[in-house]
Amino acid sequence: MQRYFIKGTVSLNETCVMDDEHVHHIRNVMRAKAGDKFNVVDGEGNAYLVRLTDLEPVSYEAIEKIENEVELPVDITLYSPFLKGDKMDLVIQKSTELGVHDFILYKAERSVVKLDAKKEKSRLLRYEKIAREASEQSRRTKIPSISFAGALKTIDFTQYDLVLFAYEDNNLTGSSIKDILTRTSVKTIAVVFGPEGGFTETEADIFKTYENIALGRRILRAETAPLYALSVIGSYYE
Amino acid sequence: MQRYFIKGTVSLNETCVMDDEHVHHIRNVMRAKAGDKFNVVDGEGNAYLVRLTDLEPVSYEAIEKIENEVELPVDITLYSPFLKGDKMDLVIQKSTELGVHDFILYKAERSVVKLDAKKEKSRLLRYEKIAREASEQSRRTKIPSISFAGALKTIDFTQYDLVLFAYEDNNLTGSSIKDILTRTSVKTIAVVFGPEGGFTETEADIFKTYENIALGRRILRAETAPLYALSVIGSYYE
Repeated sequence: MQRYFIKGTVSLNETCVMDDEHVHHIRNVMRAKAGDKFNVVDGEGNAYLVRLTDLEPVSYEAIEKIENEVELPVDITLYSPFLKGDKMDLVIQKSTELGVHDFILYKAERSVVKLDAKKEKSRLLRYEKIAREASEQSRRTKIPSISFAGALKTIDFTQYDLVLFAYEDNNLTGSSIKDILTRTSVKTIAVVFGPEGGFTETEADIFKTYENIALGRRILRAETAPLYALSVIGSYYE
Repeated sequence: MQRYFIKGTVSLNETCVMDDEHVHHIRNVMRAKAGDKFNVVDGEGNAYLVRLTDLEPVSYEAIEKIENEVELPVDITLYSPFLKGDKMDLVIQKSTELGVHDFILYKAERSVVKLDAKKEKSRLLRYEKIAREASEQSRRTKIPSISFAGALKTIDFTQYDLVLFAYEDNNLTGSSIKDILTRTSVKTIAVVFGPEGGFTETEADIFKTYENIALGRRILRAETAPLYALSVIGSYYE
């Protein structure tokens, strides 16, 4: 069922006017008629089954609250450098389906892609659209936020209960994600991935006191590693 | 390090002539010189560190056997329908990185893509190339085989120790993959995924006596579901 994220809040059995940004989709893409049903997720993350009551203006009435919890019980922040070509799109879309809470796109020392402020802004709009659509499609009640950061050394990782560092050279010596999760109880997790060319030693040094994770015994591409880690973390909690 | 899959076998400290199919890559892409080192995986799945000894003909000598086991201890066969656009490429590439043993591309009742015999043949060559390159890149010692099959009802699933059926409607009621693996000891697993439009009831009926698996609480796209399942199965064994 089609799902729309709105900015305000919804009350049961009250008529609401739909946010402008969804009007075109409802009228011209879905070609909806009064009586049609869809889902609305309000600004507080509550999901409702609603019925379209009018098209001029586009309005709906909430019939019932949807209680199934689809969000992970931990907030996972994914730290990824910019990846080349459509790989960044892939990571944003798939990680959103897999339940990530936030993306922070940092500047890795070996990043191939360098963006100026103007390009960052247009990429941000593109990534936010991908995350919103993936949230709708996977029926989430939260759209991951996306932000840009500088070098890894400028980031305060002490704000997280757990920091998992995916360092390729540690594939045979890193800890398994499930072993780490089994021995800790956390609410916030940062998972840090490197660029296509890997981390530099200077970057790896930052994470000496954090958990190095193994991603299986095969070498995963930069865009596959986050999907593996998020799947494994998700399967631990769900 | 560059890795080449060859057809014959390799003995330590003996000179071998490289298979024709890799000669162009070694000479013109890698621009290798005598003394350069790379990996060779022979037809029996043994990996070697080798040294290039000559370019005319391209020959090498095996210096040492690489003993790290990178293959999963279970053989996973992925049953997927043809997926639209570049989604099939994505599933082949990523599943190979994640350790899949074989792909069987079957004809789902709701498959959007219909291929005639000629197109099947050209797609097969394309998919085999993707699987070979992903095996090389992820440093595997096995290239997954790829084959085509008819409808699900024509396939004998009793040949597998365990059959996992990923039925979207069961996301809230299916069993977790790790719970199923914990209570069974298996060598061969078939994991069966549906097309973009989902399985029909007739197809779902075939799997009534097999394990329905949950893929987390969010609705995953057809091409994301296999990556989740393979990550979770891999993390259980590694």
